[in-house]
Amino acid sequence: MTPADTSSPIAAILRADGRTPDQLRPISITRGWSNQAEGSALIEFGNTRVLCTASLTQGVPRWLKGEGKGWVTAEYAMLPRATNTRSDRESVKGKIGGRTHEISRLIGRSLRSIIDTKALGETTIVLDCDVLQADGGTRTAAITGAYVALAEAIRYAKENKLIAASAQPLIDTVAAVSVGIIDGVPMLDLPYVEDVRAETDMNVVVTGSGKFVEVQGTAEGAPFDRDELDALLDLALLGTSQLTQIQLDILGEGAGV
Amino acid sequence: MTPADTSSPIAAILRADGRTPDQLRPISITRGWSNQAEGSALIEFGNTRVLCTASLTQGVPRWLKGEGKGWVTAEYAMLPRATNTRSDRESVKGKIGGRTHEISRLIGRSLRSIIDTKALGETTIVLDCDVLQADGGTRTAAITGAYVALAEAIRYAKENKLIAASAQPLIDTVAAVSVGIIDGVPMLDLPYVEDVRAETDMNVVVTGSGKFVEVQGTAEGAPFDRDELDALLDLALLGTSQLTQIQLDILGEGAGV
Amino acid sequence: MTPADTSSPIAAILRADGRTPDQLRPISITRGWSNQAEGSALIEFGNTRVLCTASLTQGVPRWLKGEGKGWVTAEYAMLPRATNTRSDRESVKGKIGGRTHEISRLIGRSLRSIIDTKALGETTIVLDCDVLQADGGTRTAAITGAYVALAEAIRYAKENKLIAASAQPLIDTVAAVSVGIIDGVPMLDLPYVEDVRAETDMNVVVTGSGKFVEVQGTAEGAPFDRDELDALLDLALLGTSQLTQIQLDILGEGAGV
Amino acid sequence: MTPADTSSPIAAILRADGRTPDQLRPISITRGWSNQAEGSALIEFGNTRVLCTASLTQGVPRWLKGEGKGWVTAEYAMLPRATNTRSDRESVKGKIGGRTHEISRLIGRSLRSIIDTKALGETTIVLDCDVLQADGGTRTAAITGAYVALAEAIRYAKENKLIAASAQPLIDTVAAVSVGIIDGVPMLDLPYVEDVRAETDMNVVVTGSGKFVEVQGTAEGAPFDRDELDALLDLALLGTSQLTQIQLDILGEGAGV
Amino acid sequence: MTPADTSSPIAAILRADGRTPDQLRPISITRGWSNQAEGSALIEFGNTRVLCTASLTQGVPRWLKGEGKGWVTAEYAMLPRATNTRSDRESVKGKIGGRTHEISRLIGRSLRSIIDTKALGETTIVLDCDVLQADGGTRTAAITGAYVALAEAIRYAKENKLIAASAQPLIDTVAAVSVGIIDGVPMLDLPYVEDVRAETDMNVVVTGSGKFVEVQGTAEGAPFDRDELDALLDLALLGTSQLTQIQLDILGEGAGV
Amino acid sequence: MTPADTSSPIAAILRADGRTPDQLRPISITRGWSNQAEGSALIEFGNTRVLCTASLTQGVPRWLKGEGKGWVTAEYAMLPRATNTRSDRESVKGKIGGRTHEISRLIGRSLRSIIDTKALGETTIVLDCDVLQADGGTRTAAITGAYVALAEAIRYAKENKLIAASAQPLIDTVAAVSVGIIDGVPMLDLPYVEDVRAETDMNVVVTGSGKFVEVQGTAEGAPFDRDELDALLDLALLGTSQLTQIQLDILGEGAGV
Repeated sequence: MTPADTSSPIAAILRADGRTPDQLRPISITRGWSNQAEGSALIEFGNTRVLCTASLTQGVPRWLKGEGKGWVTAEYAMLPRATNTRSDRESVKGKIGGRTHEISRLIGRSLRSIIDTKALGETTIVLDCDVLQADGGTRTAAITGAYVALAEAIRYAKENKLIAASAQPLIDTVAAVSVGIIDGVPMLDLPYVEDVRAETDMNVVVTGSGKFVEVQGTAEGAPFDRDELDALLDLALLGTSQLTQIQLDILGEGAGV
Repeated sequence: MTPADTSSPIAAILRADGRTPDQLRPISITRGWSNQAEGSALIEFGNTRVLCTASLTQGVPRWLKGEGKGWVTAEYAMLPRATNTRSDRESVKGKIGGRTHEISRLIGRSLRSIIDTKALGETTIVLDCDVLQADGGTRTAAITGAYVALAEAIRYAKENKLIAASAQPLIDTVAAVSVGIIDGVPMLDLPYVEDVRAETDMNVVVTGSGKFVEVQGTAEGAPFDRDELDALLDLALLGTSQLTQIQLDILGEGAGV
Repeated sequence: MTPADTSSPIAAILRADGRTPDQLRPISITRGWSNQAEGSALIEFGNTRVLCTASLTQGVPRWLKGEGKGWVTAEYAMLPRATNTRSDRESVKGKIGGRTHEISRLIGRSLRSIIDTKALGETTIVLDCDVLQADGGTRTAAITGAYVALAEAIRYAKENKLIAASAQPLIDTVAAVSVGIIDGVPMLDLPYVEDVRAETDMNVVVTGSGKFVEVQGTAEGAPFDRDELDALLDLALLGTSQLTQIQLDILGEGAGV
Repeated sequence: MTPADTSSPIAAILRADGRTPDQLRPISITRGWSNQAEGSALIEFGNTRVLCTASLTQGVPRWLKGEGKGWVTAEYAMLPRATNTRSDRESVKGKIGGRTHEISRLIGRSLRSIIDTKALGETTIVLDCDVLQADGGTRTAAITGAYVALAEAIRYAKENKLIAASAQPLIDTVAAVSVGIIDGVPMLDLPYVEDVRAETDMNVVVTGSGKFVEVQGTAEGAPFDRDELDALLDLALLGTSQLTQIQLDILGEGAGV
Repeated sequence: MTPADTSSPIAAILRADGRTPDQLRPISITRGWSNQAEGSALIEFGNTRVLCTASLTQGVPRWLKGEGKGWVTAEYAMLPRATNTRSDRESVKGKIGGRTHEISRLIGRSLRSIIDTKALGETTIVLDCDVLQADGGTRTAAITGAYVALAEAIRYAKENKLIAASAQPLIDTVAAVSVGIIDGVPMLDLPYVEDVRAETDMNVVVTGSGKFVEVQGTAEGAPFDRDELDALLDLALLGTSQLTQIQLDILGEGAGV
Repeated sequence: MTPADTSSPIAAILRADGRTPDQLRPISITRGWSNQAEGSALIEFGNTRVLCTASLTQGVPRWLKGEGKGWVTAEYAMLPRATNTRSDRESVKGKIGGRTHEISRLIGRSLRSIIDTKALGETTIVLDCDVLQADGGTRTAAITGAYVALAEAIRYAKENKLIAASAQPLIDTVAAVSVGIIDGVPMLDLPYVEDVRAETDMNVVVTGSGKFVEVQGTAEGAPFDRDELDALLDLALLGTSQLTQIQLDILGEGAGV
């Protein structure tokens, strides 16, 4: 079943946007949206829009110096009016909230999982994922888009001889999707209206080769059993395999992997 | 002379992008870019891109309660990689820098200058101006775009009967542009490469009826005399009159004024 | 197999402390360690020691007022010299780190999963989990100990008629354990020396009835496949069932569930 | 017309303190008020009192090292009870407000405009302008007084052979004044009672040679036209020329310029 | 022996400024230095200059509401260049240092010790003590000056009928002085050069009736014995009795006590 | 009179816990409570429990480098539910309160008073004193316990050849106790219920040889006279001599002094 498939009449009833339970929202990736960053992508999962930039600098954080390895880190943030009601800026509040920290760390770990830091040399890549419009699944869109920005930055680094043309810092691709159980039905890629109703909510980060990088399942309403967990993992693997294909299509030949 | 006019061969030599000294960069305004905010505009002055959203809420700050008046305020920020090299996030640093404060206050004052807060009733409108890509003139683009978002939010308020259909909170339009003296020549709408070379840099905020709201001239290199000041003001009035026309075109009938 | 079982000679070789892969460290819970809090427990997982206190106050946060429901939240922290080298205090740094935020949120969600907030009435319980000594698994020890402090505080609330004697705010018990893959072998309850070597690290929060509340698996070294995930979940369910029994033993009759 | 001139009977009616529209308040500068700083001045514009100190240290900020140039920067602040009602201290609030930032930046830019940083060598001068009593015009008094403190510090540096006796770091003098339109009448040097009533408020920083360093005009009430702008600039030039003379008198021979 | 007495030839040798060990520095109090605050005093102990203002507002902090009592609190701060080398502003650092907190608390406690808060009614008085120039003994000068500002504010409150003319909120006067042991000799009122050499440093706060409010003795160099403690207390009582007389002289008739 | 002496029938009536006015609470010191720190002690004064750890690192703060001397500093904090009602964490509030700063500074000064920093070499010892349960006298318990942790860390340093075996960095022992006047009666070692009632409260830090390091007396209710001060000092010396003996007993042979 592909994202465009809406053949199941029963499932269509379940979701406000007419999707079947195992269908992604329309996915769009605009590569090179920014003319300032070494790599960038504007990614859309339905109405969720995240601008991902990859900033490449020579050198590494102090604690990593002299080891001949690179570093990849990420920062996630939301514009104050990305959401339906305005939130105060974290810069104005003077501190980063727990949710922001948590997602920034998740994105960073996810992207590092497919990087060979030795092949990067002493180079740092910062991935900034700024949510311009939020409609559920911002962290998974961010991871999926950040991969494209990262791959583009590495291509830039090779073209500009900042790393050797033969270096292979990307050892795989990575994509992420949210899944959840709503009224007892496992569903793929939840928009906001579904997310708030989900009994269980899971974010799954998967490599192009189909292995897990992160599995974060949370019982929002009621605890979940092993069967439900298995059904959610199946859906997540289906979704991430489609996202991987979209990433490869957008990056074209020499995607870096 | 219009923005499209490039007939002066001498002037073209002066500017890297081929413009004459009295020519604006290509201006683009995408109204309603966000589907979350009551009003929004993505404004572009050449490569400078600012997302402006207007958030409308019932009620006013505590110090204004009970006076039957509304409030308009603004917050300006830049994404970390809007610029050529990445800047640390102010949320991460835990405080707002002086430049950010100064520009936020300027935008707020500029927009309040064309608002009749009594006609707004006890309603607050927050204008968020987030620079997605920076190439000089971000504060003037922000003011010009924020006006469009503000007008759209007021139209929304009338359509949703949050304020009376007969209320006229917008008493004028407002637009802004930067001007500067480079190698002794007054020039209009400076991109980053010109901005850093300018001896004098001025930001001018002007109403649709051609009156000044803010005049902020700074001698970056050498102090300037009265004649130079006059030439810069002439250029600024030329630029803002063109920006006003673009604003009115994009807002269409019932622009609110 | 019980925590005391060390019959497997092969497994014993694998772990520095002589445990088999499926064996918990010695667990100790001192209920009522504090004479100030409404509920408290000093919990030890081997050398990891966490002081958990439950503070009960009348009233709820503003956003919950008037709904007739209670609230349970948690804060996690580490003493500066809980670890092998001293860390700066977060109070001195002036901000909470990402890791602290993330764990505090995890503990709060975990405990709320087994609470019927309606049965609590408009009462707030804050669970403070302070790590006095750290040797791996501090977050899972904190969740397991916080349950005991929470149950004690609810007993206190009934005895002092702050909630009705017939109310049943605790709808289940909850316990947590870490599991991980080290040199390809899935292992239960990792101390620090194992934690840093783990290819995959997973924290699992499980109710007394054996359902999942949180599953947080992270590929630290290499991505993991479905079989490895399944083996880790099996181990986690084994460990949490033993922890549940220890919780029930320490709470005695009227454990609240 | 001098500050002491009150010959215009019509104008006297306009201002509560009996001044004509083009008259400064009584100006007093006590040079060397502090025995700790390398340069200092207590400046009074009527009831506005600002203590300006210049602190000279060897070395420059990191980003300027090795360029053989010096640096001049400024910090402005107000004592909590400088004003009619007490304000919270910014140190207690834990952050600098937007207004403070903006004025500190303005003072720094103004003083740098008359400094030849090459002639200073790798020396940093920090100008602290602390408002002890506020009655309007604190930023312009601060700039005017800071010039005296700066000149004194440079004299100190020469006397103590921290810079060469032949160096000429001061390339001009600088002074500032506020002007505004009240009830349609342009007026010079506004005290607080006039400042709050002004339709337009402008701060103008001018060199001893009569060139503009900063022109900051703001429509507080109604936008202003070109004629009003011109009248305000005329008044400002009149006021700053008188302030320049007072500065030169107080500094005496060898004022540094 | 009075402050003016310099008859002891031996003692004169001991102190750089020619004072005998039991002699105060020249003390000056300028009452009403500020025209904004309800009470104010500029106090000088030699080269130490502290501006003390008393701000009187109706109402009390929330935790005191409804008890019919007033509140007196204090904030101490130093201008950045009050000292021989410039210190960073606490507002810029974003936090109050330990020393500032400690002294603010000391001043507040000292002044509250001579206030009958019931007689004050629900009125709050904030004492701001800002060190304009520092040469040792700033906290004791602050307490001594704050008393004068406080007494003046209370007189203002009576004259303006904010409290009853018959109310007696001041139950005594209070003054403070530093004492210390230098080269084995107990000395009164230490300037900075002596303070840094003192083996023991003590700040003593004493009422007009000669009772102790605070005794804070610290062994900077070597621990001190009972005899040394007694000698220091004798000196402190001598000094504070002289300061009390100066306070009463400056306040004149109706000093409030 | 020893701590165990309860022979005075009159005094027993005065104190809720049956002690005579000159009797300490039961004192307990568990040396080596932490297996992570170089030195540690869990100290109890009745229900007050403070965990003191000493962290030893090579090197000194920058301002002390190259002088061949070591450094000892301290940080004091309270767990949020150490007290009868929960306090917000200072890490969450984002700043350290005045009381915390003040006590941290007091502990640091007290311990430095008995250290020969030259004998320590360029070594830093940080004393962390975390109050796990508070019932009055936490700062004096912290000082008394910190001495034991410090002595243990120095023993560790010698055993591990971080400092020479012949070095004598400890030049004395140090202990502290609170005393106060309640209903006119001087009393030793106040628990919380007595502390809040005390007219005068004094914390006294004394070396093993009976000399004063700190004397901090505060009139909470009414100012105190010289006789009362003397009686309090007598009691404090009695209490600290007993605490010194307990410290020496717990440290055993080679206590370092």
